[in-house]
Amino acid sequence: MALVGIILGSDSDLPKIQDCFGILEDFGVDFEIIVSSAHRSPDATREWASTARDRGIRLIIAAAGGAAHLPGVVAAHTTLPVIGIPIETQVAGGLDSILSIIQMPSGVPVAAMPAGKSGGSNAALFALEILSLADPSIEKKLSDFRKNVSEKIKSRNQKLNASGYKQYIKDLEKQK
Amino acid sequence: MALVGIILGSDSDLPKIQDCFGILEDFGVDFEIIVSSAHRSPDATREWASTARDRGIRLIIAAAGGAAHLPGVVAAHTTLPVIGIPIETQVAGGLDSILSIIQMPSGVPVAAMPAGKSGGSNAALFALEILSLADPSIEKKLSDFRKNVSEKIKSRNQKLNASGYKQYIKDLEKQK
Amino acid sequence: MALVGIILGSDSDLPKIQDCFGILEDFGVDFEIIVSSAHRSPDATREWASTARDRGIRLIIAAAGGAAHLPGVVAAHTTLPVIGIPIETQVAGGLDSILSIIQMPSGVPVAAMPAGKSGGSNAALFALEILSLADPSIEKKLSDFRKNVSEKIKSRNQKLNASGYKQYIKDLEKQK
Amino acid sequence: MALVGIILGSDSDLPKIQDCFGILEDFGVDFEIIVSSAHRSPDATREWASTARDRGIRLIIAAAGGAAHLPGVVAAHTTLPVIGIPIETQVAGGLDSILSIIQMPSGVPVAAMPAGKSGGSNAALFALEILSLADPSIEKKLSDFRKNVSEKIKSRNQKLNASGYKQYIKDLEKQK
Amino acid sequence: MALVGIILGSDSDLPKIQDCFGILEDFGVDFEIIVSSAHRSPDATREWASTARDRGIRLIIAAAGGAAHLPGVVAAHTTLPVIGIPIETQVAGGLDSILSIIQMPSGVPVAAMPAGKSGGSNAALFALEILSLADPSIEKKLSDFRKNVSEKIKSRNQKLNASGYKQYIKDLEKQK
Amino acid sequence: MALVGIILGSDSDLPKIQDCFGILEDFGVDFEIIVSSAHRSPDATREWASTARDRGIRLIIAAAGGAAHLPGVVAAHTTLPVIGIPIETQVAGGLDSILSIIQMPSGVPVAAMPAGKSGGSNAALFALEILSLADPSIEKKLSDFRKNVSEKIKSRNQKLNASGYKQYIKDLEKQK
Amino acid sequence: MALVGIILGSDSDLPKIQDCFGILEDFGVDFEIIVSSAHRSPDATREWASTARDRGIRLIIAAAGGAAHLPGVVAAHTTLPVIGIPIETQVAGGLDSILSIIQMPSGVPVAAMPAGKSGGSNAALFALEILSLADPSIEKKLSDFRKNVSEKIKSRNQKLNASGYKQYIKDLEKQK
Amino acid sequence: MALVGIILGSDSDLPKIQDCFGILEDFGVDFEIIVSSAHRSPDATREWASTARDRGIRLIIAAAGGAAHLPGVVAAHTTLPVIGIPIETQVAGGLDSILSIIQMPSGVPVAAMPAGKSGGSNAALFALEILSLADPSIEKKLSDFRKNVSEKIKSRNQKLNASGYKQYIKDLEKQK
Repeated sequence: MALVGIILGSDSDLPKIQDCFGILEDFGVDFEIIVSSAHRSPDATREWASTARDRGIRLIIAAAGGAAHLPGVVAAHTTLPVIGIPIETQVAGGLDSILSIIQMPSGVPVAAMPAGKSGGSNAALFALEILSLADPSIEKKLSDFRKNVSEKIKSRNQKLNASGYKQYIKDLEKQK
Repeated sequence: MALVGIILGSDSDLPKIQDCFGILEDFGVDFEIIVSSAHRSPDATREWASTARDRGIRLIIAAAGGAAHLPGVVAAHTTLPVIGIPIETQVAGGLDSILSIIQMPSGVPVAAMPAGKSGGSNAALFALEILSLADPSIEKKLSDFRKNVSEKIKSRNQKLNASGYKQYIKDLEKQK
Repeated sequence: MALVGIILGSDSDLPKIQDCFGILEDFGVDFEIIVSSAHRSPDATREWASTARDRGIRLIIAAAGGAAHLPGVVAAHTTLPVIGIPIETQVAGGLDSILSIIQMPSGVPVAAMPAGKSGGSNAALFALEILSLADPSIEKKLSDFRKNVSEKIKSRNQKLNASGYKQYIKDLEKQK
Repeated sequence: MALVGIILGSDSDLPKIQDCFGILEDFGVDFEIIVSSAHRSPDATREWASTARDRGIRLIIAAAGGAAHLPGVVAAHTTLPVIGIPIETQVAGGLDSILSIIQMPSGVPVAAMPAGKSGGSNAALFALEILSLADPSIEKKLSDFRKNVSEKIKSRNQKLNASGYKQYIKDLEKQK
Repeated sequence: MALVGIILGSDSDLPKIQDCFGILEDFGVDFEIIVSSAHRSPDATREWASTARDRGIRLIIAAAGGAAHLPGVVAAHTTLPVIGIPIETQVAGGLDSILSIIQMPSGVPVAAMPAGKSGGSNAALFALEILSLADPSIEKKLSDFRKNVSEKIKSRNQKLNASGYKQYIKDLEKQK
Repeated sequence: MALVGIILGSDSDLPKIQDCFGILEDFGVDFEIIVSSAHRSPDATREWASTARDRGIRLIIAAAGGAAHLPGVVAAHTTLPVIGIPIETQVAGGLDSILSIIQMPSGVPVAAMPAGKSGGSNAALFALEILSLADPSIEKKLSDFRKNVSEKIKSRNQKLNASGYKQYIKDLEKQK
Repeated sequence: MALVGIILGSDSDLPKIQDCFGILEDFGVDFEIIVSSAHRSPDATREWASTARDRGIRLIIAAAGGAAHLPGVVAAHTTLPVIGIPIETQVAGGLDSILSIIQMPSGVPVAAMPAGKSGGSNAALFALEILSLADPSIEKKLSDFRKNVSEKIKSRNQKLNASGYKQYIKDLEKQK
Repeated sequence: MALVGIILGSDSDLPKIQDCFGILEDFGVDFEIIVSSAHRSPDATREWASTARDRGIRLIIAAAGGAAHLPGVVAAHTTLPVIGIPIETQVAGGLDSILSIIQMPSGVPVAAMPAGKSGGSNAALFALEILSLADPSIEKKLSDFRKNVSEKIKSRNQKLNASGYKQYIKDLEKQK
């Protein structure tokens, strides 16, 4: 059964938050995905949001760009935690997406994640932190995930020390 | 019967767009006002927006600040023209309100008015321009309004020429 | 006879608001297009704007970038509704175009549309919403347009559910 | 026993997020407060953050302004959910606080709340939404809270309709 | 005969650029002032701008705020040098005024002065620099003006050295 | 003899303001170009600026990017009119260059031109407007230049009307 | 003998960086102060900067606002470390001062401190960190300074725990 | 023995500050490089920072992007001078990196370098300026470095004068 509901304002946002899906899968957490707009399919959005708790959903991840109303509109129809991902735009350096999501009025919270590359992964990890409160196995995996990350950094430093920065940068460029 | 529906995200916005009400009254156009939030009273907002056309409303003015989703949410539930007024905030110089209203996605338009003092008056005047298409008497009054404004400017120049700028500035400061 | 007058500050803006023309054609609404600058051809601009109502034009769409004075200058010469499209620039993330159009002084309104991709389409749709007040057939088509959009979203979700997000993203990338 | 740990970068931030404390008290949720800086008392901050889960804390609220590193630094030392409140500053319209909190790198999430007035209340409400997943009584209270808010809006509208906007604005100004 | 034409979008801008008038008077350069808006009195503005050269005006100073189209609109109707002063606003930290004036399209230049306190004085001084090209007596006065300013700075340093910074700051505060 | 002195902070800025050189040549106005930095070659910059008037230079055009101090530093060493061109950067959307040039303190004016494409051409045209005060033949050419521009716009409209917007856009794309 | 040279663009900046003077005095480090502008007294500024090393100055602190060229201009005339303090302005939220100081071109570094309250104190502390490299007694005092700060935070927490947040906030407000 | 410690938040930042390494090598100053994140490897970061002085490190260069906490977190654990390089991002034009590094609170200074190309080179040069206080040979090399740069500019001007700007621009483009 899906514990996490993910809603995107446009299907073109799917590749941009792909890391979100991958991390949830790695942690073995089921999720459902819906593409639905706050403005172009408001009824489907409301229906999906307001019935989420009853479907067993524990929290919602909502991604949108521009006048990114989707996370706020979803939050208006549920008391489940709503995590908002600002999809980066070309206008005002993406401040439109960031400010439309973060500056929610008092009474209806949305948890804003970063715009840009880390939005998807951090939304998944924040969702997992919430789920870990009820599921110690997730907490264990989150700690392991962090350890792995810091081990990976350690091994990068070993490689950097061994090869020197010039060789390391050359290797980096090869990987691209 | 009200031709213009005005919706505000918070009653504290009422004094900030007061010029809007005054101008509509001066032009003899009936309007209705509702305070309703996109997030805190989403059902009332949707109900009000989706029934507006049937109530005889010809266009909607929606004012909100911060993550100002109200005009967009209203526009999602009607094909009436929706005019959005960004209520100025302290954060990011009010860019949160402006960008949340102007950067609407394709398919659901909102007409963004200025943040700050001229938001209320220009929303009223833009509404009147729309109404004037069906009502030549409004068009007449709009032309007169413009003429009055430019006459007022002319008489200010006469006063400025007569008194000199120093005296004029002193008189300005007395009026405050 | 043209009901909508469209003015662009530069012919290089033509492709950027192409969606505007397409939507108006789809709705069967006649329009005229002129390229004229607020600064480089001010007399032609004023002439065009001030005679628009008499030519039968019902509303004006004006697109410009940078110090985007065109919508405001046009609005100074007519009491027809003027819809402004900020053409996105490289400077300040396009805030120059947005703020030059939205922050009009009290007395002469301009309805600001989004910068970026949705500017052209939303200008057309907002124009159609205004025209629909006098023409129920346009209102009908607008409702159908919205229904089509939300049906399209529904069918995307069906495809997404059927194929899974990985396959869906692959298919998206193929379409590019 | 405290379920929520609240950390502030400076004691001068205490009055700015007072609503946070009040709402948690209204919901009967215990919390602990510590003033500790990411930079001026980094060891106390790390100690407090890294032992929070073992003290029974379920989630952390961290408020800071300027180069607001506190929420991120706390998140680096725990896998508990961390909610960040950007304390509004005078510089860059508070964008320094907002961007320092929201733009976290991949791997260590922080949930960013609004800068300005609603930061404190929304942090509390978002915390309660998380806690409600394990405690249906909180979910019940959250639903009631929302209903109360929307009832309050309804009664404001009744008052507005009864008195008219002019009287309502006068009454608003008296309350200040 | 007036050599400098000064146009302001609103009479409320008069006190904000008062330094401009004062400096021109100190240099003995005649000027004319008109209050006229690009939008609210476009015909008076055009008339004034397009006849300026024939009236003997050598350059124009235009001050406006918000969507500050006035300097650009004036420049569209004359080949005299046009100096623009952005009147500071509350929105976007005054970026609306700055960007509306500075980002002129190719072909019609405007010389943008600072927003804020130094806008008025620098517009006057820049005008005088232009006039000095034809009038060596103005060049002489400009050099003296600069020398006086740097002498004043020198004497402040003497006072600062003599009294110490603590006493100097106390004296500064008394002067307010 | 050169009437216009052009200084660039870096030789990489030369192609970015090429239109400036071209327009001055078209008008038959001699100019000198120097590459010199406010920071990396301050003595050469000061020497060049402070002797400009004696070399017969009538006005200076200074282009720089980032912390663009060059126009201000040049202006500190001359009472000739200084025109500043902000070279567009990637940081803060070029606001660093714009604000470093426009926000000069009281006493030492710089005339700021647009960032981006029109910076170079408008600097040249503004310089020509200044020179035209002493040379009616330049004024004549400036008027002709404006007429040509507006004629060109007229002929574009004829082409647009003749071919329709679809064909016109296709032709535009071919020209790229 | 003065080890630190402090230069301010205007004597009105003296009170704004007062903390800088106080901290240097507390650490027993001699300093000299000069008021001199990059633009209004360029020769005095250059003279002061280029002779600083020979006067025994070890590093320079330069404070300025707006188009804040002073730190960069000073750095152009010395290879001593130059620390820049952006004096906060009303325009663009102080971004003018920040970007004019931080975005120095390659080759001439300036160390940018925060705009706002902490600019003065952090400039002093950073200067002391540099001086501590040659003087272990300063390093000792810096460590003690940090310990005192973290002790003060500890004692605030004890008071907060003892009195509760409500009483603490009341006490804070009394102190104002 | 390494005198300069360089820490990067991500190995992908290595190529972006390569100029930093090259300049230090050219000056014959030893340095150590570590990749370590403020958030993903906080313990390694703290360990490295807090032991730096005892390892003989004289100053630290820290580079990070986005919510760039690394320089501040490093500074919290040492009284050595910390120089921060904001790695440019796509969001908000890199303002996230700049503001997260520059706006440090009172008590823990970080010296902010430019975002973009000159960040790496200026960090190295600023480090060398600090080291030059104890090592006159470095001061000598810094003076020579500056002389070389200004000589290079001189020879570019000779080439520019000899070839003319058109040829010079062609040659520039060939070099790309």
